[in-house]
Amino acid sequence: MHIVVTNDDGVVAPGLLALATAMRSLGEVSILAPDRNWSASGHVRTLDRPLRVREVILADETTAWACDGAPSDCVALALCGFLSKPVDLVVSGINPYANIGDDVTYSGTVTAAMEAVIGGLPAVAVSVDSPDNHLGLVDYSAAANVALKIARTMMRTGLPRGLLLNVNVPYIAEEMIKGIRITRQGNREYHDRLDKRVDPRGKPYYWAIGDVPTAQAEPGNDAEALKNGFVSVTPIQLDLTAYRFLPEMNSWNWE
Amino acid sequence: MHIVVTNDDGVVAPGLLALATAMRSLGEVSILAPDRNWSASGHVRTLDRPLRVREVILADETTAWACDGAPSDCVALALCGFLSKPVDLVVSGINPYANIGDDVTYSGTVTAAMEAVIGGLPAVAVSVDSPDNHLGLVDYSAAANVALKIARTMMRTGLPRGLLLNVNVPYIAEEMIKGIRITRQGNREYHDRLDKRVDPRGKPYYWAIGDVPTAQAEPGNDAEALKNGFVSVTPIQLDLTAYRFLPEMNSWNWE
Repeated sequence: MHIVVTNDDGVVAPGLLALATAMRSLGEVSILAPDRNWSASGHVRTLDRPLRVREVILADETTAWACDGAPSDCVALALCGFLSKPVDLVVSGINPYANIGDDVTYSGTVTAAMEAVIGGLPAVAVSVDSPDNHLGLVDYSAAANVALKIARTMMRTGLPRGLLLNVNVPYIAEEMIKGIRITRQGNREYHDRLDKRVDPRGKPYYWAIGDVPTAQAEPGNDAEALKNGFVSVTPIQLDLTAYRFLPEMNSWNWE
Repeated sequence: MHIVVTNDDGVVAPGLLALATAMRSLGEVSILAPDRNWSASGHVRTLDRPLRVREVILADETTAWACDGAPSDCVALALCGFLSKPVDLVVSGINPYANIGDDVTYSGTVTAAMEAVIGGLPAVAVSVDSPDNHLGLVDYSAAANVALKIARTMMRTGLPRGLLLNVNVPYIAEEMIKGIRITRQGNREYHDRLDKRVDPRGKPYYWAIGDVPTAQAEPGNDAEALKNGFVSVTPIQLDLTAYRFLPEMNSWNWE
């Protein structure tokens, strides 16, 4: 099996190295990841310029490809022939901080997996729920083992075309993790406010930023699983149609 | 009613001007849009730098705000207080070329509307199915009238929180449009291939690009409506959970 590992934190991020190392138990791993951070970059396809790719050596002395495009650009390159071998699986992460609720359309970790799904491949996005104020290096070891277990089961069981798995791992010792829960995507509340500042030349600039987003734990959702010490696995689809609303919309009077 | 109009083609795009002009029949319009093209940019929140905004004068001598962030950044700014008045509705477009099928997570036009939905507002994304090889200026007049009609009906009838309307208008004379169809998101087939080139310094660079994406017209989907001369209106939700797959996943054996 040929597995492409990518992320949205950049090719030198320790979360990517931990994920790639774990995935080597499952097959041959190629790393093709952005050369910089693309957090909250969304589902990008770079159209107005070509992409550059260079070979880099990671901390464990393995080699990787570093690309100047977005995570989803990396996956697109891998799927259209940049890597000489056909790809069987795309795994993205490990992202520090959870990607739950409405994070999924922003997240470069998840949108890299979306690009794989559009290309017809199964994909897993992996994040760890480390606290936003975490100091020092995040420990990815438990999440890497969980990612391996989930990818292995998914490849053996089979995932319907058009789906990806969004995996979030609680940030606790591996032996404290209570198990895996299949969840639905919950909600996220963002608390952004406008922070207007003035630069040294007297010109205004703006940050739309605020407190850390919160997530409401509700029965069966991603936040509840994490809160209770379970791994959250949400099957995500790229058909965004609000099917339940179609009958009501069909009765609208257009004027 | 206070309506924010944005787009992903940049503040000087004629499709934005046509949309803003039409929306003035419905309420007060503020234009806050990117200062450049952000096609296929995805759902972005710019985190690593502040945003700049400057006032510009459009071709009809109205004023607009041009921002150096993505379409979704523009909406985030508008919703967190950059505009002095509260916002009631966000309308994005008019995009030349349809945004159907899997285009929706890439599309800056649609992801601007997603940002509004996350902020708790109703939103409409509007695209016109002009041919990819269209020469000269696209005529947005029919699509602008359709957008006004749809936004007016939506605001009168009410849209459940968490949804947006993705509107695609066939590129035919207004009197030839057969009506409005409520559709589901169809599929898209992208035909990208790797185009490797070598620059004048002997270094390789890569385009992942190919023929124009195709869409299969199937009963009830967006492509079928357009093909038959109808406006396609797809209600889009931000909960991407593959609910139909949850029971099967709950029977997986993790090992």
